[in-house]
Amino acid sequence: MILDRPPLALTLGDPAGIGPELALAAWRARSVNPGVPPFFVVGDPAFLERTAYRLGETIPIAEIDPETAAEVFPRALPVVPLPSGAAIAAEPAKPDPAHAGATLESITAAVGFVQAGRASAVVTNPIAKYVLTQVGFAHPGHTEFLAALSAAPGAEPPLPVMMIWSEGLSVVPVTIHVALRRVPELLTAELVMRTARIVAADLTARFGMARPRLVLAGLNPHAGEAGTMGTEDRDVLAPAVERLRAEGLDIRGPLPADTMFHHRARATYDVALAPTHDQALIPIKTIAFDEGVNVTLGLPFIRTSPDHGTAFDIAGQGVARPDSLIAALRLADRLARNVAANRPAPPSADVIPMSAYADRPRPARPTHFEPTDEL
Amino acid sequence: MILDRPPLALTLGDPAGIGPELALAAWRARSVNPGVPPFFVVGDPAFLERTAYRLGETIPIAEIDPETAAEVFPRALPVVPLPSGAAIAAEPAKPDPAHAGATLESITAAVGFVQAGRASAVVTNPIAKYVLTQVGFAHPGHTEFLAALSAAPGAEPPLPVMMIWSEGLSVVPVTIHVALRRVPELLTAELVMRTARIVAADLTARFGMARPRLVLAGLNPHAGEAGTMGTEDRDVLAPAVERLRAEGLDIRGPLPADTMFHHRARATYDVALAPTHDQALIPIKTIAFDEGVNVTLGLPFIRTSPDHGTAFDIAGQGVARPDSLIAALRLADRLARNVAANRPAPPSADVIPMSAYADRPRPARPTHFEPTDEL
Repeated sequence: MILDRPPLALTLGDPAGIGPELALAAWRARSVNPGVPPFFVVGDPAFLERTAYRLGETIPIAEIDPETAAEVFPRALPVVPLPSGAAIAAEPAKPDPAHAGATLESITAAVGFVQAGRASAVVTNPIAKYVLTQVGFAHPGHTEFLAALSAAPGAEPPLPVMMIWSEGLSVVPVTIHVALRRVPELLTAELVMRTARIVAADLTARFGMARPRLVLAGLNPHAGEAGTMGTEDRDVLAPAVERLRAEGLDIRGPLPADTMFHHRARATYDVALAPTHDQALIPIKTIAFDEGVNVTLGLPFIRTSPDHGTAFDIAGQGVARPDSLIAALRLADRLARNVAANRPAPPSADVIPMSAYADRPRPARPTHFEPTDEL
Repeated sequence: MILDRPPLALTLGDPAGIGPELALAAWRARSVNPGVPPFFVVGDPAFLERTAYRLGETIPIAEIDPETAAEVFPRALPVVPLPSGAAIAAEPAKPDPAHAGATLESITAAVGFVQAGRASAVVTNPIAKYVLTQVGFAHPGHTEFLAALSAAPGAEPPLPVMMIWSEGLSVVPVTIHVALRRVPELLTAELVMRTARIVAADLTARFGMARPRLVLAGLNPHAGEAGTMGTEDRDVLAPAVERLRAEGLDIRGPLPADTMFHHRARATYDVALAPTHDQALIPIKTIAFDEGVNVTLGLPFIRTSPDHGTAFDIAGQGVARPDSLIAALRLADRLARNVAANRPAPPSADVIPMSAYADRPRPARPTHFEPTDEL
């Protein structure tokens, strides 16, 4: 399989969660119409082989480098080992800080691959913050960690913006994982404007929308009804929307949140921003529970992830649904194609032939590879 | 048409809003399968005739008393005049405090009819509070006004509980029309418990559910994740749920609000309570925008209303959809039937024959009546 762009880098996630088995399930679905784009897992090949064995499956694993992943993808699941060579001995459903180092290294390495042009996007499997904090992980979450990794040396990390995307609805919570009590103070005009600008820019650059249509939900019931039920909509959100419109953004609001998400309303915009986590997440999880994809906007690279957690309670049973991970891989590929199509052709001297990648050093043991007729 | 119970009383709502034309549309749909149960409008017969005329329709209007309404319903829209005999000269789309008195009198009279056993439920058309406050209306809203009207003399009014009902999902916001900033202070364990008890009692008495299954959403994202994102879920909501369970209620929570409303989750409960207006209203308006019915629980009588406002912007155009009003009439009738079926048979001396109603005084001018073959 020859691509005009590198494959996707998929992180392992917490190895005791459902991430590893979902990676296997996504690979098995690779040829099922409409297919799954080529990806490689960043992790321990032997651990993935054991994961398959426990589930009673035979999945060919190819220990390989990113440049060869797309070529072997039709026949084997490509796994790029962790740079440290660390082995992972995790048991499903048994989260353990002993594996936190490998979880984090998979993320760090995947970001390294995408920044070096060796992957076209990062797709992340779920992690459990409370496991990682036991080894000193100090970032507020997965996304903020990615932002920190993508910052230029000495520079402020970019503001990462979480969008949950599905075919029929995309939403952006302006505040995310904070107590509801703190939202009124955190919801500044500046935050709304920075968020909306990032959303609009990324929908253009990565989703190919010339002029995306944004809407903003109000904070209070009925968007405050002219200040009679809370003043933030009138005093903070409305002026922010006015300024964004003056900058040329196509944005409306603040609108009453409860009447924004039915099917006729959804047809009038491309993305809905909402002040609180639940205002944004409730509608999309109500109508697209298994298909939602988490997309991080505002990073210097494309990042998607499934819209669910580690699900330790069902890990190892083979019952977790790969729908959201598959949707995340497909969306990452679609965005990578858009970006590749929009990128101006480089001067010919800079063109690196695909064959050049093959000359890079490879891991010493390039197999765990066997033919298969698995779908 | 002979019923084993009185017909429904429908209030006029703001006469400049869409209420009057929806009343006409609901009556026209009376025989369209699955039909609309018999109701009478409390208002000015001549005004409703003019409303029909403006829309280019000929709708027979019967000026009548509640006891004869069901009998004429197949042939004419029964209208019971306001007790004061007030005429209404409202123009559609032109709200005017001059009509506030008639709007309020329609509500007061409808409540009088249901309390006297002359109507089996009250169905209310939408009002606009800002119009009414100009004539001194001091209640927080329509529902609280109904609660005040239903209080025994000198007694505290009952706590009215708003439920939005649809075939596939019913929701109850524990706080309603208040600024989001105030929700954490208003959301006491006492309020949650009073609300849940009223919901459970009314679902049994009126909806015929022997042991209704309740769920409660958390206030904070992910229901606070054990106190790491806000403490109210752990310290206020969880203990309230524990106490309710100890009382024998079937209630679970606090649950993460965003994952409660997809179709598999909805199948596990009969009603979802949520701390904020938007957490409760977003999911139901997302999936059942035109079919939601507002039901007030906790009142001594059955009250439903359509789940929309006065819509002054489209009033008089004949484009407003009667779906929600029709759903409100049907649900009110269904609840009235349940209540009638559950009521112990009265001792025979107390039985009032239907014919007895006919002896009550009638309005002086009993017509505006003409035959029709309208559906």
